[in-house]
Amino acid sequence: MNKQDLTLLTDLYELTMMQGYYVKGQNEKVIFDVFFRANPCNNGYSICAGLEQVIDYIKNLNFTYEDVDYLRGLGIFSEDFLHYLSGFHFSGDIYAIPEGSVIFPKEPILKVIAPIMEAQLVETAILTILNHQCLIATKASRVVYAANGDGIMEFGLRRAQGPDAGLYGARAAIIGGCVGTSNVLAGQLFDVPVMGTHAHSWIMSFPDEYTAFKAYADLYPDNCTLLVDTYDTLKSGVPNAIRVFREFKESGRKFGKYGIRLDSGDLAYLSKQARKMLDEAGFTDATITASNDLDEYLLHDLKMQGAAINSWGVGTHLITSKDCPSFGGVYKLAAIQNSEGEFIPKIKISENTEKITNPGNKTIYRVYEKDSGKVKADLICFADETFDPSEDMLLFDPIETWKKTKMPGGSYTLREMMVPVFRNGECIYQSPSVKEIADYCRQEKDSLWEETKRLFYPHQIYVDLSPRLYEVKKNLLDQVNKA
Amino acid sequence: MNKQDLTLLTDLYELTMMQGYYVKGQNEKVIFDVFFRANPCNNGYSICAGLEQVIDYIKNLNFTYEDVDYLRGLGIFSEDFLHYLSGFHFSGDIYAIPEGSVIFPKEPILKVIAPIMEAQLVETAILTILNHQCLIATKASRVVYAANGDGIMEFGLRRAQGPDAGLYGARAAIIGGCVGTSNVLAGQLFDVPVMGTHAHSWIMSFPDEYTAFKAYADLYPDNCTLLVDTYDTLKSGVPNAIRVFREFKESGRKFGKYGIRLDSGDLAYLSKQARKMLDEAGFTDATITASNDLDEYLLHDLKMQGAAINSWGVGTHLITSKDCPSFGGVYKLAAIQNSEGEFIPKIKISENTEKITNPGNKTIYRVYEKDSGKVKADLICFADETFDPSEDMLLFDPIETWKKTKMPGGSYTLREMMVPVFRNGECIYQSPSVKEIADYCRQEKDSLWEETKRLFYPHQIYVDLSPRLYEVKKNLLDQVNKA
Repeated sequence: MNKQDLTLLTDLYELTMMQGYYVKGQNEKVIFDVFFRANPCNNGYSICAGLEQVIDYIKNLNFTYEDVDYLRGLGIFSEDFLHYLSGFHFSGDIYAIPEGSVIFPKEPILKVIAPIMEAQLVETAILTILNHQCLIATKASRVVYAANGDGIMEFGLRRAQGPDAGLYGARAAIIGGCVGTSNVLAGQLFDVPVMGTHAHSWIMSFPDEYTAFKAYADLYPDNCTLLVDTYDTLKSGVPNAIRVFREFKESGRKFGKYGIRLDSGDLAYLSKQARKMLDEAGFTDATITASNDLDEYLLHDLKMQGAAINSWGVGTHLITSKDCPSFGGVYKLAAIQNSEGEFIPKIKISENTEKITNPGNKTIYRVYEKDSGKVKADLICFADETFDPSEDMLLFDPIETWKKTKMPGGSYTLREMMVPVFRNGECIYQSPSVKEIADYCRQEKDSLWEETKRLFYPHQIYVDLSPRLYEVKKNLLDQVNKA
Repeated sequence: MNKQDLTLLTDLYELTMMQGYYVKGQNEKVIFDVFFRANPCNNGYSICAGLEQVIDYIKNLNFTYEDVDYLRGLGIFSEDFLHYLSGFHFSGDIYAIPEGSVIFPKEPILKVIAPIMEAQLVETAILTILNHQCLIATKASRVVYAANGDGIMEFGLRRAQGPDAGLYGARAAIIGGCVGTSNVLAGQLFDVPVMGTHAHSWIMSFPDEYTAFKAYADLYPDNCTLLVDTYDTLKSGVPNAIRVFREFKESGRKFGKYGIRLDSGDLAYLSKQARKMLDEAGFTDATITASNDLDEYLLHDLKMQGAAINSWGVGTHLITSKDCPSFGGVYKLAAIQNSEGEFIPKIKISENTEKITNPGNKTIYRVYEKDSGKVKADLICFADETFDPSEDMLLFDPIETWKKTKMPGGSYTLREMMVPVFRNGECIYQSPSVKEIADYCRQEKDSLWEETKRLFYPHQIYVDLSPRLYEVKKNLLDQVNKA
C-alpha cells in the first residue's frame, strides 16, 4: 500500500456528495460512526484491528496535481471544487477503540467528528482498512482458540486477495494470536516473527529425498523441519527423516528445533503413525507440524481425535477468512451540529430492522463483573453521560426491552473503550507495536467468559443502550413513523 | 501496492531454500508451472488476470540495502548469500496465457524457466497476484452472465480485503465484464469507467428527503440516480423522486440518465411497485438500479421473478468472491535442466491424487470446432510438439483414459495459448489496456458453449494430455511406485 496514493481510494459518490455540500455551502460538523452488525463466523466477539493504517491514511490525505487532473477529466467537477480539493486536509476529530480490543456488534468502534465534506470523503478507505483487519484478526483468534495452546503460523500469503491482503492480513493474524507468519515483508514492516520450512520443490531438486533432507539438516540445524510427503509420507518421508536425524546426532551435532511437516493425506492418522515411528527411533522431542487446508473446525476435530501435531501452519482459510470473507463494518451519520454548536441526533430507518442506526454523539463503556473481572456487557451511551459504579445499574436489551439485568452498586467496574486519536486534524495517539497489540489482545480475551470464546454457538455478550440514548432513539423512530 | 517494496513479499522458505541452493552451488535451470485444480464457484471456466502486475513485480525485483539489513538481522543468512541477494535480478524466461483468456483447471497458465534460485524466489508473489485477480475476474464473469445484458457496477471497495484487494479487484472485475467501478483510484490507474450515486447520509444531511433529492437533481442532471430507501421506499422515496423528476421536467430542463436506486427490502417486489409508479407518472425511461448484498444467485432469481431492475451495483459478494474467496493456483516444479542442457521432467506424487503434477516443459493448444468456432478441448503437450490440424486428433481423458473423442482432420483448428513474456530477464510483452483486455475477454467467452457458461452444473471442457506427455507421466509414476 503506497501511503501517498490512497487519497483517491474512495467511492466516486463520496466526491460527488462532497461537491454537493460544497455547492450548497453546507459544511457543518457531523458525526459518523463505524460499527458492524454481526461477528464473523458466528463468533462470540470480534477483535479490533487496522487503526494504525487508518491513522496513516488520514495523515497522508491530500489531492496531488495528478489526482485533481484526473478528476477534472471526468467532467463532473467544477473548477471551484477542484481548487478546494487541491488544498484539502483533514481537520476533524477521531475517536476509536484501540487495536487488539475485544469488540461487539452494534457499538461504535470508530467515530469521526468533522465538517461533513471531510467526514464523507474518508468513509470508504476507513471501512476498507478496518473491515479487512478486524476480519482476519477475529478469524485468527478462532483458529488460535481451536489449537488450545499449540502455535499457529500464518502461511497464507499466496492465497491472499492481493499483496495488501497478505501483508495486513499477516499483521492482523499476529494481533489475533498467531505466533508468526511466513510473510517476510510483514516481518520487516511490523517486526513480527517470520517462520517457514521448505517446499516440495526442494526435495524434487535433489536426486532423492534422503539427500535433500540431509542437505537441509546440514544447513539449518537450529530449525530443521523436514517436509515428508513428497513421495510417500510413511514409507519414504518419515523413515528418511529419521535416518537423517539419527546420522546427525551420531555425528555429534545437535539440533535446535527439529521435526517433520505433514502437508497431505489424513493428518490424524499420519501424525499418530509418524509420532510412533519418531518415538520408537528415540526422537520424542521431534515436533510434528501440519498444514494443508486447515481451519478452526478441522483443527478442533483433529485435536479431538488425538492427532499428534504440535504446530500448525494455516493458510487459505485464515488469510481469506474463507467461510466468512467479509466483515460488515458500516459508516453511518449519527448527528449534525446546529448553529448553536449542539449535535442533533440523526437516525436512519430501513426496511431491514437491523439496519436502523443509533443516533447521537456516543461512547462505549465496558461493564466488568468486579469479582471475576469478566465482561458483563457493553453500554452504548451519549459521550457526555457519566455513571457511578457505586450505584445500581439497570441493563436492558434495546430490542427485547423486557430482558433486564440489575447490576448492584459496587458489584461492577466500568471502562470507557474509545480513546482520542485525532484532535483538530492532528494525530494525538501513538500506535503501540504489533507485538504490544498482540499482548494486549491476549489480556482482552482473558476478560471473556469461556462461554463467549466457544467456537460453536457461543454466548453473546449484551450490548445495551443507556436509558437516555434509548429514549432519544425511540422518540426519533416515533417522529419518523408519524410523518 | 508500492512497486518498489514487493521484493520481500515472499514466504521465508523461498529465501531459506535459495540459500540452500546457493550453498550447494546448485543453480541449474528449472521450469515451474502455475496451474489451478478447480474453477471457483463450480464454474465451467475461469478468467486469467493479473499478468500486468506480475510483470511489474518481476521488473522491480531487487533487494535494497534495508531489505538485506533486515534479512541479516534474522540471523539465518550468511554474508556471502546476502551479498548475492544485493545484486539479484531476474534473468529467466516467462511464458503466460494472456489476461482475459478463458482458462481451465490443470493446465499451466504461466511458466517460469530460470535458474532455480530465481525461480524459487518469485513463487509466492506470482501466486498472490494471479490467484487474486483470476478469482475476481471469474466471479465477475458469473455475475455478468446472471445479469443477462444489464450492466453490473463493481461497488465493493469498502468490503474488500484491504486497499489492494479493492484496487486490483476492481481491475479484475472490469476484465470479467463489469461496466464500471465506484473505485476512483482504479479509475485513475486503469482508465476504466467510475460510477456512483449518493449515500443515505446525503438524504439525512438535509431537512427532508424531497429537498435532498431536489438538490441532487439540480447538481447532477446528467446522471441523476436517487436513493429512495432512507425512510420508506414506496411511501416516501419513490413519490419524492417522482415529484422531483416532474418539477425538473416542468421547469423545461432535461436529464441525461435518471432514475432511482433500491438498497434494502425485497428487491423483486419493490422494483415492480416502483416501476409501476414511475410508469404511471410518465417516467418510463427512468432506470431502476439495485444494490444490497447481491450475488449471481440472487440476481438470477430476481430476474426469474421479473424484477424491474435495469442496473445492478454488486459489492461484497463480488469483491471478495464471497462463496469461494480463494483461487487455488499453485506453483510446481516440472523439469530440471541437466548438464547437456536437456530438461528432465519431474513429477510430484501425493497422498491426494489430484495433487499429482504434469511433468516437463509444456505448452497449451486450444482445440476449436471449425464449424462453430467453439472450444472443444484444451491439449497440454510438450513445448516442442507440433500438430497438423489436417490430420485426425485423438483426445482422451488423462485419468479416465477410456473416455475418447476423435477429431477428424479438417474439422478443428488449433491455437497456442501461451505467449512469451520475459526472455533472459527482459520483458518482451506489452500489456494491453484494461479496456482492451475486457473486450478480448468478451470474445473469449463467445468461444464457449452456453452449456459451459451456465451458472449451475456447467459442462466441463476437456483438458487432455498429448499421447507423448501421457506416456512420460505414466513412466515417471511407475518409476516412483517401483522405488
